Amino acid sequence: MKATIKDVALRAGVSPSAVSRAFTDGASVSAKTRALVTAAAQEIGYAPNALASSLTTGRTKLIGLIVNNFQNPLILEVFDLFTRGLQDRGLRPLLVNLSGAVDPAASLHMLRQYSVDGVIVASSTLPSSFAHAFRAAQLPVVHAFGRKSTVPDVHVVGIDNMACGQMAAQALMQRGYQRVGFLGGPRAATSTQDRAAGFLQAVQAAPYMSASQSFAENYTFAAGRAEMQRLLSAGPAEAYFCGDDLLAVGALSAILDAGLKVPDDIGLIGLNDMEMARWQNIGLTTIRQPIDQIIAAAIDLVIAAIAAPDLPPETRIFPCALIERQTLRPARD
Amino acid sequence: MKATIKDVALRAGVSPSAVSRAFTDGASVSAKTRALVTAAAQEIGYAPNALASSLTTGRTKLIGLIVNNFQNPLILEVFDLFTRGLQDRGLRPLLVNLSGAVDPAASLHMLRQYSVDGVIVASSTLPSSFAHAFRAAQLPVVHAFGRKSTVPDVHVVGIDNMACGQMAAQALMQRGYQRVGFLGGPRAATSTQDRAAGFLQAVQAAPYMSASQSFAENYTFAAGRAEMQRLLSAGPAEAYFCGDDLLAVGALSAILDAGLKVPDDIGLIGLNDMEMARWQNIGLTTIRQPIDQIIAAAIDLVIAAIAAPDLPPETRIFPCALIERQTLRPARD
Repeated sequence: MKATIKDVALRAGVSPSAVSRAFTDGASVSAKTRALVTAAAQEIGYAPNALASSLTTGRTKLIGLIVNNFQNPLILEVFDLFTRGLQDRGLRPLLVNLSGAVDPAASLHMLRQYSVDGVIVASSTLPSSFAHAFRAAQLPVVHAFGRKSTVPDVHVVGIDNMACGQMAAQALMQRGYQRVGFLGGPRAATSTQDRAAGFLQAVQAAPYMSASQSFAENYTFAAGRAEMQRLLSAGPAEAYFCGDDLLAVGALSAILDAGLKVPDDIGLIGLNDMEMARWQNIGLTTIRQPIDQIIAAAIDLVIAAIAAPDLPPETRIFPCALIERQTLRPARD
Repeated sequence: MKATIKDVALRAGVSPSAVSRAFTDGASVSAKTRALVTAAAQEIGYAPNALASSLTTGRTKLIGLIVNNFQNPLILEVFDLFTRGLQDRGLRPLLVNLSGAVDPAASLHMLRQYSVDGVIVASSTLPSSFAHAFRAAQLPVVHAFGRKSTVPDVHVVGIDNMACGQMAAQALMQRGYQRVGFLGGPRAATSTQDRAAGFLQAVQAAPYMSASQSFAENYTFAAGRAEMQRLLSAGPAEAYFCGDDLLAVGALSAILDAGLKVPDDIGLIGLNDMEMARWQNIGLTTIRQPIDQIIAAAIDLVIAAIAAPDLPPETRIFPCALIERQTLRPARD
């Protein structure tokens, strides 16, 4: 027999409505009553499940995390922070895998069947048509790692990718590199477009600098390695800003295999500061994204959007930081 | 009053069965009827969602994936396979983060609030008391990466960790190593216990061999590196079986930092075949777990357990394979 609110009330010596209030966020109930109710509920194995509560509130407390790239180790930190953050607020993290998805309508259909209260799109490569389709269907949506905009049409949380490109360019110039290159991810990713734009703008402002750009097929080790092999045979630059740490480590392996040294022969700087960048046998100089701030803001914003669907779209941008390790030569005084 | 299929049918001027077909994937219905039904449903706030269906079936279609380690890149493959597998079956993957959890009762309470139909515990380090508590509470549970047993008390899907230890020992013996060591993960993990037992048993059966064992604090790069630094200062063995790829790469970095070479001075073999083991600048020789088979079986088994809660606990074990790269010297003829 499944325990009911009445059973808990009897056990705790309070009214059924007090039990109900004790399990409702923000309801008026004394700390003592809540403690009695919680203890009684645990003793008899009662749990106020989300299904029951969703019948009265119309909310499922399910928040979808939409991911389309399971290759990047950075996403593990995202999963960890996201699930903890939701659990702490009594919400339920639903994982939505859109790897290879091309049709926003089909994805929207799936989200409706999933009965999510709102979604966080955690991707810089999923076409923005997805987030727009969700918003057009009145589904509260926050785009984490999305594009900075002064007139956003969905809520966006992330970094200023153009500023990151400029930061990388400055780091290379301060270290005396003159022929530099951008080794980006897929051309269609707004993150790659903006990092390239910021980088090239800053480099081209200095008359003694020359810059090239090229693009890997996707944000993976293998694609970064293949693109660097091509660059090496064509005649490489002195240093590269790689649009992602995985690309940078792939490039690093290609350079070492060619019998060259990093940073003695070619310098590398990545972006993200994934776990493996810190490995002492990698030691990648990179630009760190503040993942914890981005996820915390995305959760806050999706909760706000669920409470107020007409909230005007907002953009929250967090600063990045240069993390110096061993793949660039030292800065000049 | 909640809107029903009948209300939608009246509003749209079609039969209830047409409404039902309009909301069923792949059912035969004209585009015009689907449009009428969709419009009518939106007007009166009807949604054929999982929530509605759970009211009639008593099932939420939510399957919890319980994870307590977000450091290991292998878990990304698990997430990808798990979410695709559930989505293909119309089920909803709920992510449950039990990093640092110590109380099975509190976790069970959370799962009840989450209203999951069943759970897959994907961990070799979460104490088995968790899976047992879930099963005792009649929650269908499958333990992926759990311990092989001839008398299982929960459903288990995984590998034979003792056989993996033996496989590693044989690989080292075939390559002429005589003083060998096991560098394991946390002592409390059954995966480490069984890998150690299989490894030492096989080594000790050969009279000319000598073996040592030691344990890292957890399955991380940093712990493997720290433990290898300790071994190096105490006088290392000729080769190590590391109980996990992350430990092996941490050990590799410590060996290289000490000015020694792999495999010339010390040999290393890992376990898992995570993505980074394949990176050409790592090139780790390792034993591969068939993650895809394990996840597919875990999904099949949790579905079976939900349909038949009294199903006797079953153990499904899949074979591992040696993946030769560059951290062991060549095998002798």
